[in-house]
Amino acid sequence: MQLRAIGRRVAMILMLGMLGAVNARPQSALSMNLMPWPADVQQGSGALKIDQSFRVAFTGYTESRLDRAGQRFIERLHRQTGILFANQGGDAAKATLVVHTNKASKDIQELGEDESYTLEVTPQGAKLNAANPLGVLRGLQTFLQLVDASPDGFAAPAVSVKDRPRFPWRGLMIDSSRHFTPLDVLKRNLDGMEAVKLNVFHWHVSDNQGFRAESKKFPKLHGAGSEGLYYTQEEIRDVIAYARDRGMRVVPEFDMPGHSTSWFVGYPELASGPGPFSVEKKWGIMDPAMDPTKEKLYRFLDDFIGEMAKLFPDHYFHIGGDEVNGKAWDANPKIQEFKKTHNFKTNEELQAYFSSRVQKLVNKHGKATIGWDEIFVPGAPKDIVIHSWRGPKALAAAAQQGYQGILSNGYYIDLMWSAAQHYAVDPLSGDAAALSPDDQKRVLGGEATMWSEYVNWENIDSRIWPRTAAIAERFWSSQSVTDVDSMYSRLEAVSEKLEWTGLTHKSYYRTMLQRIAGGATADGFAALKTLVDVLEPVKNYTREETATYEATNATPLNRVVDAALPDSDVARHFDKAVAAFVSGSCKDSAASVQLRTWLLKWHANDAALQPLVQKSWFVKEVAPNSQDLSAIAGIGLSALDAIAKGTPLSNDAKTQATVRIADASKGKAQLLLIPAPTIQKLVDAATSGGACAAKN
Amino acid sequence: MQLRAIGRRVAMILMLGMLGAVNARPQSALSMNLMPWPADVQQGSGALKIDQSFRVAFTGYTESRLDRAGQRFIERLHRQTGILFANQGGDAAKATLVVHTNKASKDIQELGEDESYTLEVTPQGAKLNAANPLGVLRGLQTFLQLVDASPDGFAAPAVSVKDRPRFPWRGLMIDSSRHFTPLDVLKRNLDGMEAVKLNVFHWHVSDNQGFRAESKKFPKLHGAGSEGLYYTQEEIRDVIAYARDRGMRVVPEFDMPGHSTSWFVGYPELASGPGPFSVEKKWGIMDPAMDPTKEKLYRFLDDFIGEMAKLFPDHYFHIGGDEVNGKAWDANPKIQEFKKTHNFKTNEELQAYFSSRVQKLVNKHGKATIGWDEIFVPGAPKDIVIHSWRGPKALAAAAQQGYQGILSNGYYIDLMWSAAQHYAVDPLSGDAAALSPDDQKRVLGGEATMWSEYVNWENIDSRIWPRTAAIAERFWSSQSVTDVDSMYSRLEAVSEKLEWTGLTHKSYYRTMLQRIAGGATADGFAALKTLVDVLEPVKNYTREETATYEATNATPLNRVVDAALPDSDVARHFDKAVAAFVSGSCKDSAASVQLRTWLLKWHANDAALQPLVQKSWFVKEVAPNSQDLSAIAGIGLSALDAIAKGTPLSNDAKTQATVRIADASKGKAQLLLIPAPTIQKLVDAATSGGACAAKN
Repeated sequence: MQLRAIGRRVAMILMLGMLGAVNARPQSALSMNLMPWPADVQQGSGALKIDQSFRVAFTGYTESRLDRAGQRFIERLHRQTGILFANQGGDAAKATLVVHTNKASKDIQELGEDESYTLEVTPQGAKLNAANPLGVLRGLQTFLQLVDASPDGFAAPAVSVKDRPRFPWRGLMIDSSRHFTPLDVLKRNLDGMEAVKLNVFHWHVSDNQGFRAESKKFPKLHGAGSEGLYYTQEEIRDVIAYARDRGMRVVPEFDMPGHSTSWFVGYPELASGPGPFSVEKKWGIMDPAMDPTKEKLYRFLDDFIGEMAKLFPDHYFHIGGDEVNGKAWDANPKIQEFKKTHNFKTNEELQAYFSSRVQKLVNKHGKATIGWDEIFVPGAPKDIVIHSWRGPKALAAAAQQGYQGILSNGYYIDLMWSAAQHYAVDPLSGDAAALSPDDQKRVLGGEATMWSEYVNWENIDSRIWPRTAAIAERFWSSQSVTDVDSMYSRLEAVSEKLEWTGLTHKSYYRTMLQRIAGGATADGFAALKTLVDVLEPVKNYTREETATYEATNATPLNRVVDAALPDSDVARHFDKAVAAFVSGSCKDSAASVQLRTWLLKWHANDAALQPLVQKSWFVKEVAPNSQDLSAIAGIGLSALDAIAKGTPLSNDAKTQATVRIADASKGKAQLLLIPAPTIQKLVDAATSGGACAAKN
Repeated sequence: MQLRAIGRRVAMILMLGMLGAVNARPQSALSMNLMPWPADVQQGSGALKIDQSFRVAFTGYTESRLDRAGQRFIERLHRQTGILFANQGGDAAKATLVVHTNKASKDIQELGEDESYTLEVTPQGAKLNAANPLGVLRGLQTFLQLVDASPDGFAAPAVSVKDRPRFPWRGLMIDSSRHFTPLDVLKRNLDGMEAVKLNVFHWHVSDNQGFRAESKKFPKLHGAGSEGLYYTQEEIRDVIAYARDRGMRVVPEFDMPGHSTSWFVGYPELASGPGPFSVEKKWGIMDPAMDPTKEKLYRFLDDFIGEMAKLFPDHYFHIGGDEVNGKAWDANPKIQEFKKTHNFKTNEELQAYFSSRVQKLVNKHGKATIGWDEIFVPGAPKDIVIHSWRGPKALAAAAQQGYQGILSNGYYIDLMWSAAQHYAVDPLSGDAAALSPDDQKRVLGGEATMWSEYVNWENIDSRIWPRTAAIAERFWSSQSVTDVDSMYSRLEAVSEKLEWTGLTHKSYYRTMLQRIAGGATADGFAALKTLVDVLEPVKNYTREETATYEATNATPLNRVVDAALPDSDVARHFDKAVAAFVSGSCKDSAASVQLRTWLLKWHANDAALQPLVQKSWFVKEVAPNSQDLSAIAGIGLSALDAIAKGTPLSNDAKTQATVRIADASKGKAQLLLIPAPTIQKLVDAATSGGACAAKN
């Protein structure tokens, strides 16, 4: 049967009488997998069918950016549905989706501009209204999230959305220094950011491992400091235009006075210590730092900041400022002398002097400074923004003194936390929760930070997405939106949609595993996938602890740890199933069969993996993880048996199991076996006095 | 542990004494998943490790095309291994892979140029020698196929390859008319062609549904006949250069006098019937045809062919010529009059007249004609190439009369045959096998043909690959290379490698299924995939027969039939397992468990799919296929039970089962359930007198 065309060209009737309040996620045949969850959602009745007659039109104020947004929207809708929407144009008022806005947003996007919009969808059509093009961009993404397969073809559920962000600064930082980020990778991530309504791309373009921005005034910066991997000014302007099209600001960061080895390769005279310098290959906090005592340095920075302030139009200029270990200063007698002369007792005071000088230069070139906690020094101008890697306490202290700040502590996505962990962090929690309403307004939002020691073009998407969508919800949605189950349920759907933007955070996985497997059979590949599906890279900065090699930025990122996802869906589903089983009757037959199916598969998996272990070094590296999985699955099966039989596990058996699980819980090959603690829960439940033993 | 650097900068020693003959595919720890299989392969001992020190260098004759080939090779190797090979350059003779060639190939690639090469790989290094850059391109692809995960990291097995193609014309035709093929899609397919050593890209650029090549002389051809979807001459030159870089000729096809509606939209005066004409949307053989009686037509074609002959440098110019139904000629009194005047009794004679005139024009512009069987007319010049869609008989007849030909009958990949079916077709089979050796030389090779009624940017790769790799082997490798198991085993590995070239014939599948599933849970998605994994689109041109709608080129290709693979790996593996089981003892416990695992999963799958059937129209469309799968899996389980118990199925039970399986074997929703006949085999074996019943 052909999809029936529906009579859409009748005047749109808003069936407000049929709208009902939606407090939580609605239980509808049509999904409402929105993320970030809007400020106000009222579900209507029925759905708007999406077929070939779909048209979008813009009324009121127009600009070329909106035209491009419309084309991009239609292209996304095409990819999501497979339908070609050939006939755009025509009578605007009779389009399926009528977009209206009255006026332009600022020529250079500013912090705090209005991003609100309303979106009304009925079976007859849809209307999107926004105060300016920024709200239009946000609303179009909401519409795309509404469209899904329905019992009647593709459709968007009837709904009335009124939406606006909670915080005005919602960012993602990408470190393009430690591993260079190719332009197409940047752009697809900007597309992902647009999809979840982020509005600041913080571009960490210089660090010890590379100076990635072209400087025409000081060409040895990128020339000597990047090994050829840098962005030309034309490319940078292209990225900025690309971001503006998506309603995003671009804040550049030139980290100083530390994290600056790459500057010194071409300009050793800026450094505190003697050269020559070479681009750093390794990770960690390095000694080299700028020499804050040299007037020549400030003349250089004056010229350099002047050049970059013109290149990057945003009002904010990030000067870094983090992690100066002071060793280069301590080792330089002239600097010691300078400290004495100026009565600086500590290196912190010396850095405060440097920060204060640089902040003046930034102001001189018409910008305001943003920097990491370290730039918050006595007498700092009130227009600075403190970027807190230290935490809400530092942020709250600054806010009380009248300083604005954003939070990244808790949003370090390179730490490989689960989405739930990041989701639980609120910029207005801890000390910040106790701030007065006025002080709270100085907490502008936050940024997820993608430090790039272990990411490259191939796996970076999977480290950013989908977890950053959950962080984006934290920044956009009401503080009361905290249900983790709802978050994960919507996140899984949104993650699929993010792939339609061009991101590869799901598809990379199969490709990398297949490479690791070599020319494996389908069975061998399935066994590898079964294992890696429940492994996650070790958390926080512990990767080096379980590595048997020293990684540099030349080390291939082609191991299982580079492919494994940071937040295993399979392990989470298993954990939820176990929790439900042991908190229930412990006798639910369907639940027990489901758990047994998982455990049997895992238990048998090590044997299935053996041919690949013999064949591929990369699989061999995770052979201990595979043995652990089989072993703990066996323990889990014994626990299930004990529960089924009503015979609690003996204390001896529990002890043995616990020891084995503890061993399996250790990081091996830089990987954690995520179901291990869950199986411990099953063992505990099966032991005398445990949750299930008590129910027998 | 860090991958050990090996001392590679010692002089390379060819350990010829350790080489042994390889008749079939070697049973080595390291795979030799080569396709097409080379003319001569001698396996050595050990392997060449691929690590960061790998360098490739070119010696002897050099050209910029070889530089680019080297860069592309390193990029491919990088993608296959995840290793960044930073330091190219340096002493050429000490590179890991030393490539040598003595002289240039022709400026414009010619039919029959030498493509031979030798490749020697030892643990110390590798040498590739070729007569000219074409052989280099072929040998580099062989090397890339050799590299795989090994017990010691990535490596290429030691081997000595001497290789040359069997046929000089090894092509792939892509129909860019019925669905426009975006440039990036074309290019990634050219990359795939290079990987399997094809050397002719036959570009079907005009047909009823669109005229896709820009003509500056007759701008209404593409202007009125393409709905804006056409290739500019600059883009065409870009594609030709891209192909030349990969050692491929580009043969354009402008189909005439039929299949030409799109010409008439802008130039109705060329047609046999009265206009106006519009671009065709539907599929099939259409009536409109050029009017072969008009001198004006030949003047037009003279100018047009002159323009295109300059644009496309290849010596051959494809004029189509197929499927003229003659209706437009019969309906035109002037044409009837012309036939009488010229004593043409049939429309075939009239077409022969047309062909002969056009062939002269092609010659006039310095080219030779290639066309479908229909151009083979009495008195045709001996330089033409007959492109046979009719079969080897037509080809043999032409060869005997001194005409060259290529075969496409048997290589119509739009018919959705299995790779094995295409693989079994040999250009020198049937009547051609009986040709004299000299006549056989006129059979130049063949072409796979990708007619595009049901392919677009998203699924076209999956219709071309990996099956075309098996066809490429037929064209390149010795006629004696025919083992289907070996072919499939190598094909699965080569298919993975093809994805590293940028093709999406594997990754598109998950993406399309996810769209079909909508915001499905992981379990729901798994159930959908389990079903679709064993469905294939109906075969030959029967798709319309089981469709409930009339498809046009505006119909979205977003259904299960558009996602399902043409050659199900799962169904083939199942079929092989059943065949082995019933031809064995029928009591093999491991084999029986394996079959039971498959059948249990399928049997339970329909229930697991129900939530999606309710949710998504696209899944609902395949609900009958899902019921069939569960039903026949249940029948299979009963048959297995009967075999295990030693109690043959009753004739009644067999009859019931056979009826149900026959129903399940019918095309539904344009899809075939591939395991159905296999399960019939199991039923037959379990019945009294069957293969297994007899063994009890």
